[in-house]
Amino acid sequence: MSARRGFASDNAATIHPEVLAAIAAANQGHASGYGHDPLTERLAGQFTRHFGPGAVGYPVWSGTAANVLCLRAACRSWQAVICADTAHLNVDECGAPEAIAGVKLLSAAGQDGKLTPDSVERLIVRVGDEHAVQPRVVSISQSTELGTVYSVQEVRELAELVHARGLFLHMDGARLANAAASLQQPLAGLTSQAGVDLLSFGGTKNGLLGAEAVIFLAPELAGGFPYLRKQSLQLASKMRFLAAQLEALLQDDLWMRNARQANAMAAQLADGVAGLEGVRITRPVQANAVFAQLPRSAISTLLEQFDFYVWDEPLDEVRWMCSWDTTEDDVREFVAAIGRACAAQ
Amino acid sequence: MSARRGFASDNAATIHPEVLAAIAAANQGHASGYGHDPLTERLAGQFTRHFGPGAVGYPVWSGTAANVLCLRAACRSWQAVICADTAHLNVDECGAPEAIAGVKLLSAAGQDGKLTPDSVERLIVRVGDEHAVQPRVVSISQSTELGTVYSVQEVRELAELVHARGLFLHMDGARLANAAASLQQPLAGLTSQAGVDLLSFGGTKNGLLGAEAVIFLAPELAGGFPYLRKQSLQLASKMRFLAAQLEALLQDDLWMRNARQANAMAAQLADGVAGLEGVRITRPVQANAVFAQLPRSAISTLLEQFDFYVWDEPLDEVRWMCSWDTTEDDVREFVAAIGRACAAQ
Amino acid sequence: MSARRGFASDNAATIHPEVLAAIAAANQGHASGYGHDPLTERLAGQFTRHFGPGAVGYPVWSGTAANVLCLRAACRSWQAVICADTAHLNVDECGAPEAIAGVKLLSAAGQDGKLTPDSVERLIVRVGDEHAVQPRVVSISQSTELGTVYSVQEVRELAELVHARGLFLHMDGARLANAAASLQQPLAGLTSQAGVDLLSFGGTKNGLLGAEAVIFLAPELAGGFPYLRKQSLQLASKMRFLAAQLEALLQDDLWMRNARQANAMAAQLADGVAGLEGVRITRPVQANAVFAQLPRSAISTLLEQFDFYVWDEPLDEVRWMCSWDTTEDDVREFVAAIGRACAAQ
Amino acid sequence: MSARRGFASDNAATIHPEVLAAIAAANQGHASGYGHDPLTERLAGQFTRHFGPGAVGYPVWSGTAANVLCLRAACRSWQAVICADTAHLNVDECGAPEAIAGVKLLSAAGQDGKLTPDSVERLIVRVGDEHAVQPRVVSISQSTELGTVYSVQEVRELAELVHARGLFLHMDGARLANAAASLQQPLAGLTSQAGVDLLSFGGTKNGLLGAEAVIFLAPELAGGFPYLRKQSLQLASKMRFLAAQLEALLQDDLWMRNARQANAMAAQLADGVAGLEGVRITRPVQANAVFAQLPRSAISTLLEQFDFYVWDEPLDEVRWMCSWDTTEDDVREFVAAIGRACAAQ
Repeated sequence: MSARRGFASDNAATIHPEVLAAIAAANQGHASGYGHDPLTERLAGQFTRHFGPGAVGYPVWSGTAANVLCLRAACRSWQAVICADTAHLNVDECGAPEAIAGVKLLSAAGQDGKLTPDSVERLIVRVGDEHAVQPRVVSISQSTELGTVYSVQEVRELAELVHARGLFLHMDGARLANAAASLQQPLAGLTSQAGVDLLSFGGTKNGLLGAEAVIFLAPELAGGFPYLRKQSLQLASKMRFLAAQLEALLQDDLWMRNARQANAMAAQLADGVAGLEGVRITRPVQANAVFAQLPRSAISTLLEQFDFYVWDEPLDEVRWMCSWDTTEDDVREFVAAIGRACAAQ
Repeated sequence: MSARRGFASDNAATIHPEVLAAIAAANQGHASGYGHDPLTERLAGQFTRHFGPGAVGYPVWSGTAANVLCLRAACRSWQAVICADTAHLNVDECGAPEAIAGVKLLSAAGQDGKLTPDSVERLIVRVGDEHAVQPRVVSISQSTELGTVYSVQEVRELAELVHARGLFLHMDGARLANAAASLQQPLAGLTSQAGVDLLSFGGTKNGLLGAEAVIFLAPELAGGFPYLRKQSLQLASKMRFLAAQLEALLQDDLWMRNARQANAMAAQLADGVAGLEGVRITRPVQANAVFAQLPRSAISTLLEQFDFYVWDEPLDEVRWMCSWDTTEDDVREFVAAIGRACAAQ
Repeated sequence: MSARRGFASDNAATIHPEVLAAIAAANQGHASGYGHDPLTERLAGQFTRHFGPGAVGYPVWSGTAANVLCLRAACRSWQAVICADTAHLNVDECGAPEAIAGVKLLSAAGQDGKLTPDSVERLIVRVGDEHAVQPRVVSISQSTELGTVYSVQEVRELAELVHARGLFLHMDGARLANAAASLQQPLAGLTSQAGVDLLSFGGTKNGLLGAEAVIFLAPELAGGFPYLRKQSLQLASKMRFLAAQLEALLQDDLWMRNARQANAMAAQLADGVAGLEGVRITRPVQANAVFAQLPRSAISTLLEQFDFYVWDEPLDEVRWMCSWDTTEDDVREFVAAIGRACAAQ
Repeated sequence: MSARRGFASDNAATIHPEVLAAIAAANQGHASGYGHDPLTERLAGQFTRHFGPGAVGYPVWSGTAANVLCLRAACRSWQAVICADTAHLNVDECGAPEAIAGVKLLSAAGQDGKLTPDSVERLIVRVGDEHAVQPRVVSISQSTELGTVYSVQEVRELAELVHARGLFLHMDGARLANAAASLQQPLAGLTSQAGVDLLSFGGTKNGLLGAEAVIFLAPELAGGFPYLRKQSLQLASKMRFLAAQLEALLQDDLWMRNARQANAMAAQLADGVAGLEGVRITRPVQANAVFAQLPRSAISTLLEQFDFYVWDEPLDEVRWMCSWDTTEDDVREFVAAIGRACAAQ
């Protein structure tokens, strides 16, 4: 598309060739629309294989949609969702949780993007008070928007607290594969086995054209979901092509290969800049993102050659995101440029 | 996907090979997400070329989404949308216009799926009465859900009425290409030049994987639409692949070739059954659908071999939909089967 | 307020003196807000006394609110409400059911404002089809917007059908007292004992300043209602004064006295005009409204002296509404004026 | 209602006798419903007299409603409202801004309940970024939920900032009269003349039965408001009785008399406890509320005799609210009890 490569987002990456091949393979003959086709039916088996026998998954197009539909399914309008102040839900979905799911978010200051049991507990208050929204769901991002990863133990502790208070645990897994690769865990280990009730499972950032899934691990939340998906503008007519993408990701280890590559490139990048004068890594590098502070003029110089986001302008903090198609050469070239930009200070 | 071919829906069809090739061609290198890529920028030129210099288009994933976003953009919550009782908006979107756009639909009995000026005018009442919703948009489907087509003159007359009353005209163009092929008109002739203000332009039913567009022809309705698209769960992160599909459709005459083929197959099918004892064509065949009544037991026999919808069960009326990939052989085989099934009565 | 008396609406009437006295009596000392006061607690007993031991009632300010809150409580967003095309819900609440409760209404042509089992059954279709809204509630108005009354037997038959199909029966009882007076039935006889699940109980049109109640007869619908009432802008801080009004209405027979007077005046009015040349009563007069056709110029003449609504302008049909404070003199004077106006033709 | 007097809320107070007399005086003869009556028309003059010649006011029932309707009128769904974290909007309306107005709140840490220009400015970010909600309204409470008052100069500075950034300033004036009494200012001085665009004007806490008003000072926000009020369940059928209340409050100086009394009682209470061992006033006492810390066991003892709220349980901070009907004897008795309870430690 563009000759220029970058570290802006894992959304800037291409479709993995195996995924494109799966779409082409699915492009044979007629198939019933809206998911009543053999490929979509077959995909159900991948969801149970990876997320446990009770998992029921529904493909949707986007991660925003997966998140918002999870909340719409789980909450009545007077119920609320607890999340980190940095959660994508809270800051990057243009108010969709409030406007489309119709629920209020209660945000807590996270630690490097992660909620702690304490921060959650402080928000479960005024239970039974009709003047206050009633917490119903706690939502965590895995991996987080700051490139960190909850340990399995941390997820379990949150789940225990959440369940003890009668709430449900939602995981925004737009980058779940990166967390699994980081923790060397199967997907169930991070989700159903750790107490997650409701999952937004991401595919697009990990090599798909555009497919995610809402996965119910607590079946009591799933009632009426087919209607909710249709009404919420997320029922694909040619569903077989979403199913084909997700199957390609899940049927063997493509999800893991892609995530490992992205994570490895972030690690290589973090290593590469570690010794550079003027660069300070600001967040633990646990998945496929590197956050760093560097001199403002170095940032400007680099942005002339590479795409990436200035995360916190006053602090001169930037985000460098690696994707499945980031190469060692990409990273080497970028590290060298960072070195030159910083040396020019 | 399935060896079995059918006439259930143009959604059951495959992706046109040129479209798949365009996706593959776009799958090179990094590209900024969310439409800030060269391909999406280039697509803007196709919208103005086909719909007039003022046309501004936004790709979305689905036809339901295109319709609902048009209404959300045009209406405040106390405003209403007039449509035919058979409109997809009214009967096949699981309440999305009401629940997501938050507007009331006022439905009129159509004639073979078409609104008439009289039927519209009867619903523009109680203007200024705070107890009643205030009509803001009239929505017509072109071609209609019953396979009929508004003539250019009919659209113009509706547009004149609508504008004279201070309203806007929306066209649900999920099958606009079929209408254009039927009327031998360019797309602008049916839309901007005929007074349409707001268009849901369909691609998926006409050979795409999954891409439609909201097209503003009345620019005063477009304010804030990027926010609305994002919030309404329709901003694709890897937008370049939606743009590639729509460009493939619009850049030469693929949209017209596909639509002509679908329409021609419907005409051949209608001709083929015309002389059959027991079959009665129930609606004018003007686009790619054939509606017919036939004996109940013949319907049952046919459904064992071919997919199609029973449209009105008490009336034994069926819908046979042709698509871009319906072949002459498909139709011949189907007509023969219909003949056998009816003869067996 | 205005020297001029009229037949425009039972909303144009005054507050009954006993109600005003009850407000004044409640105006002593401090009382906890939001319904946590002794008077509101005492009112619960009136609800069970009149509507059955399982009845749970919540005061709200307006009839629109009572209706919309009933629907919000009973329905998820993909569920629909079946009502008559003439229902207040459908035509006089400015789209509140759609915009605030977020549900779609499915309207059936009523007979003099009443739904029939057949008309309801025709709309309970496509059950389980994710593209279609799923009927959840059938709503009937008692007495209806056209001044007619469902017999107890008619309500029972609808309730049986509704329950057999797994739905709930809502009654818009803005004028329930008028129906009860007409049928000489206690309130439970028309509601809980006839199979009604959810009731909007009206008080304002029957002599209150402004108070209605949402009454749950099917307790499974009541979950979370206190939150819903608060969130939907209907939790009165000085609730004791709503409770005082409703108690005044229900504690002895004021509700019945007021309704009988209004009904009697409508009957007297209908009798009075029955023999007049040019006047035709158009609907059965069963509660407190008279619908009639009369010459257009007579309508104009009368409107110079009396307030009332022209119901259907093309048909020259008018609505004359009597209220608890309509007097025999009011009616005599009006009948005389009608006679003069018609004679002048 | 209850022999027991208290300091729980100004909502626990009675209706002022002049207000009840005004309701009785309005209870004469027929009057058109929904505000088309002479009394409501006359009230318009009170709004312009107190809030400036451009002020257009609409009575509603509740303060929650006034706030939510202001936001619904001013915002499209992708727009956001900046408020203090302690704002009633944010913590005491059960999510109504999100669920009914459909907008996201962006909350800033206030200082004793007040926003500062800095705290507001930090939230006006990402303007033009389609992934983020777009600030549209800044909402301040006057007096605040913590009993403090913005000076006229403080309001002006916020208004200047807000207008410079293209936003609008909303004032939640549920206790505006108390602020005006505190500052010895006319109502316009605190609102229209200080740059407020949109006002929720409170009456219920200041001696009414139940009436507030949405007042547009920036007329460009008022379009379509009659529809919005009706649809949002806030159009009173017997409007004359809301108008009568508001007129009684505004036509002479009742609003000021009532507010002065409430404020004076809070001052007397603060003075009374100032010297008591163990009592610490925690917020500036500028209107009709006193916030204080005192020993936990003293709180328990006092709650056996008087109603009031424990505001912050971990901090042992309580709220004592005075109302128009709080007497010097009430305060003396309460101060004495506080003294005894603290001495018993």
